[in-house]
Amino acid sequence: MCELLGLCANEPADIRFSFSGLKERGGRTGVHKDGWGVSLYEGRASNIFRDTQSSVKSEMAHFFQNTSLKSKIIISHIRQANRGRVCLENTHPFKRELWGCDWVFAHNGQLKGIKKNKHLQFYRPVGSTDSEYAFCYLMDKIRDAFPSRPRSNKQLWQLIEAVAHEINEHGIFSFLLSDSRYMYAFCSNRMCWVTRQYPFSKARLVDTGKVIDFSKRLKQNEIVTVIASKALTDNEDWHCMEKGEFRVFSDGVSKRLAA
Amino acid sequence: MCELLGLCANEPADIRFSFSGLKERGGRTGVHKDGWGVSLYEGRASNIFRDTQSSVKSEMAHFFQNTSLKSKIIISHIRQANRGRVCLENTHPFKRELWGCDWVFAHNGQLKGIKKNKHLQFYRPVGSTDSEYAFCYLMDKIRDAFPSRPRSNKQLWQLIEAVAHEINEHGIFSFLLSDSRYMYAFCSNRMCWVTRQYPFSKARLVDTGKVIDFSKRLKQNEIVTVIASKALTDNEDWHCMEKGEFRVFSDGVSKRLAA
Repeated sequence: MCELLGLCANEPADIRFSFSGLKERGGRTGVHKDGWGVSLYEGRASNIFRDTQSSVKSEMAHFFQNTSLKSKIIISHIRQANRGRVCLENTHPFKRELWGCDWVFAHNGQLKGIKKNKHLQFYRPVGSTDSEYAFCYLMDKIRDAFPSRPRSNKQLWQLIEAVAHEINEHGIFSFLLSDSRYMYAFCSNRMCWVTRQYPFSKARLVDTGKVIDFSKRLKQNEIVTVIASKALTDNEDWHCMEKGEFRVFSDGVSKRLAA
Repeated sequence: MCELLGLCANEPADIRFSFSGLKERGGRTGVHKDGWGVSLYEGRASNIFRDTQSSVKSEMAHFFQNTSLKSKIIISHIRQANRGRVCLENTHPFKRELWGCDWVFAHNGQLKGIKKNKHLQFYRPVGSTDSEYAFCYLMDKIRDAFPSRPRSNKQLWQLIEAVAHEINEHGIFSFLLSDSRYMYAFCSNRMCWVTRQYPFSKARLVDTGKVIDFSKRLKQNEIVTVIASKALTDNEDWHCMEKGEFRVFSDGVSKRLAA
């Protein structure tokens, strides 16, 4: 299994506090030592750092941890390989272009029989993971239904949710996805999120004990939501998503879709 | 205009010596200060570092310069913006997936009227550069002609060369391209390459005066070809490509196609 970390904010935000907790789980407090990655959007394009080294040992993770790179939408992943060997091709997040936007995807779970049962059309996986295969299938479905971005977000969101449920039939399909405008989260087994907004308080990382005072770091108008497979702090009010729950995040705010 | 740097080797190689020369041209010895990028293949996947900062100031370039990241195929680019503002979306190299391989592209030149005259089908640009548009057009043509990788490399290479000439009609279209197996270089106005193989000698960078003794850095069996818009060293035998010349590099060796 793997762990996911996402950030969605109304202004470009720094994920290093959360990432410093997550990366401990990539070999120190957790077993997810088979590579890590992080995607940061700037406009419609995403910059992705990926490394097959464990996040606690990776020089690139160390650089990322020590450099202020901000984005309104960030997706990160630490991997414990189950399907597919440890190599760059199999390292999340994955990226594909649709409608002139980078789409970025990271997955936590395992999907049995997906390669046999789902036919791919336009997008092909570069690696051998069930995760990237599922991403390609999802992207195919979106491309097929909407050759260009639909005017109605609702139609798009409903399609993503429907395909997520369809793929989820193959096992566990918790994922974070973004089309550069929105962050999509699907909870197959476990996922939770917390929104930080004024008045800000202190947060303490479960994995390191490190404390940050957001009132000294964030401006009054900033809203930052962090999504994670498991709560990263032990003194904040994390909302647990239900199994099969799909959420859309935008500008730091969570939106629950009507059924 | 921009500058290109490519590396093709028979074993994963380090490009930092050449890059340390190129990056000086991104704001110090050259005017290409509007961002930089580098792509390194591992198998069929490419890891791309891109930054809108000038390469002489970029923290990411500094990290890259100080970290040993090796690859058999590397494509790097420093940008002087002419079409399209300075932003990540417009920063080379660009990447798209075809046949389950990452294709990576970087361009030096300007193309007039390409957006009006060439229609895109499968691939769409994320940014607004003529460069990425031309890359999408080229990828469309390859995809259209070969839904899967053709058995004959020659057919593929001839197609790439033909489309390169077609696009070159719009202005200047010097580029480096890779499909993860081969490195393709097209010279519209200027491009040169040098092959380093046993017995190795010393090389001195034009831009910094730095000297490296490859006999102490490379193993006897290693063959490394470096391709650049302008020679990076002043004591090696760089081969100048002709205008309109197309070359394929593989395992460090240059192959000239039969007409």
